[in-house]
Amino acid sequence: MLTATLLGCGGTQPLPHRALTSLALTAAGRSLLIDCGEGTQTAARRWGVSLYKVDAILLTHYHGDHIFGLPGLWQTMAALGRTEPVLMAGPPGLSAVVRAFLTVAGPLPFELRLAEDASRAGPLPVLGGTVTAFPLRHRAPCCGYAFTLPRAGRFDPDRARALGIPVRLWRQLQAGQEAEGFLPRQVLGPPRRGLRVVYATDTRPYGDLTDAAREADLLCMDSTYPTGADLDKARLYGHATCAETGRLAAQAGVRRLWLTHYSAAVTDIEPGLAAAQQFFAGAEAGFDGKTLTLNFDPD
Amino acid sequence: MLTATLLGCGGTQPLPHRALTSLALTAAGRSLLIDCGEGTQTAARRWGVSLYKVDAILLTHYHGDHIFGLPGLWQTMAALGRTEPVLMAGPPGLSAVVRAFLTVAGPLPFELRLAEDASRAGPLPVLGGTVTAFPLRHRAPCCGYAFTLPRAGRFDPDRARALGIPVRLWRQLQAGQEAEGFLPRQVLGPPRRGLRVVYATDTRPYGDLTDAAREADLLCMDSTYPTGADLDKARLYGHATCAETGRLAAQAGVRRLWLTHYSAAVTDIEPGLAAAQQFFAGAEAGFDGKTLTLNFDPD
Repeated sequence: MLTATLLGCGGTQPLPHRALTSLALTAAGRSLLIDCGEGTQTAARRWGVSLYKVDAILLTHYHGDHIFGLPGLWQTMAALGRTEPVLMAGPPGLSAVVRAFLTVAGPLPFELRLAEDASRAGPLPVLGGTVTAFPLRHRAPCCGYAFTLPRAGRFDPDRARALGIPVRLWRQLQAGQEAEGFLPRQVLGPPRRGLRVVYATDTRPYGDLTDAAREADLLCMDSTYPTGADLDKARLYGHATCAETGRLAAQAGVRRLWLTHYSAAVTDIEPGLAAAQQFFAGAEAGFDGKTLTLNFDPD
Repeated sequence: MLTATLLGCGGTQPLPHRALTSLALTAAGRSLLIDCGEGTQTAARRWGVSLYKVDAILLTHYHGDHIFGLPGLWQTMAALGRTEPVLMAGPPGLSAVVRAFLTVAGPLPFELRLAEDASRAGPLPVLGGTVTAFPLRHRAPCCGYAFTLPRAGRFDPDRARALGIPVRLWRQLQAGQEAEGFLPRQVLGPPRRGLRVVYATDTRPYGDLTDAAREADLLCMDSTYPTGADLDKARLYGHATCAETGRLAAQAGVRRLWLTHYSAAVTDIEPGLAAAQQFFAGAEAGFDGKTLTLNFDPD
């Protein structure tokens, strides 16, 4: 089970009725945050995401609307008694950003484990799954993130009995752990489809992003501009229109699409949603606090 | 006319229902902000304070809950087209804080004019009045601010006529400006009582603060802890209890008192308000968006 909570859906500036875009993913009581603009910690409290249990903070890039909440988040985590290490990932430049914020935030009671140049780092283990960064196309070095929660193959009791494995070891093997010399692969079928959530903002649509989003359970993507009238601006500033986002979601064959990172000038998302739905009928407009719990496919 | 808007009333951590303490003062369409924690820019929008017209940002000290909104505020002011200089004042350490935030906020299209070591800087002109910093007693170097909007003496038309000053020059002299060789003091009585607002958090109560707050129209002061049960904590962390704040307001003979900077643990301000009112009957509990327009005394 994996819960996605959109902590905000805005871009550029936090507004009273619209927090900056950030996505929280929660599995087995632990969470990761993707992006952390000014107000993200407040939004996390508002929507019930425990800051004490944040194991990773993944940054897409270092524009203010994606990072200015970092020092406050750290200090609140410290005040809540956090001592376990926190993974931080981002494109090149991460350590300079962390250093600047530590200047004003002071020493922290937990270690920050930096994965700089995240899109070259390979899969990073977190929340019992892995997160993989991939490059986005923005005005600044930027990366998106794909979080995967794997699912082990089906347990075969007939094989376990044939191999003479005592029943008391079955649970351990089912959980993917070796047990008294027996190996999980001896009793498990091929891995089954897990869950995958892909976050991609700020970005232009492009082929590698389509590949990264392929058949995702949820794609949460840059939808800065509602209509094609803003296409020139989208190209200039490295963002996407809602129609482009809908088209990419359709090409990638995702299961669900959430639009997010609306321009501060957008007061009505309906035209943008309609534009996205022309390409991907199931497109949904992101809003602050939008949440979804994903479950593994029925067996 | 001077309008005070309390943008938030909390301390330590921004909460969904309570922004961090910051006070906006507005006169003749221009504003200053005292303190700028995470979320202050959002609160300013919420309560109708134009960020484009902020001429000064005054910082009491450099704990996160008073400064982490700075880079976001700057960037939003830049996005709004601000080019005029902005006065920034604070205790020693200001330039280091500004430098750290500029690392992540990038170059700005307006100049930051720093008044470092503000409590030694003397009165600083802003909003047609002056702001004077004075030391507070906190765990870190900290200063409070007294903003004064002066009021010229009464214009004496009989003296003006006796001096043969043409009527067309009266308005200029009334406004305190020399006119064709005539001086304002030739036709104006002694200066009249202006308006004064004093902001003092984070701090212990103490004598110099009482002096600084003397007969203020409004005192907005640290009320971190509601009851005397937390007096030891107040002493340890350099804050005040509501009773202490009420007592200081009474000793200083202020006209109005707003309690603010409530601990994040405070869910009900009524006990604290009652404690303050035992000493200063007119004490009022600050709340997000609390506003007051002060006018000069009737002639």
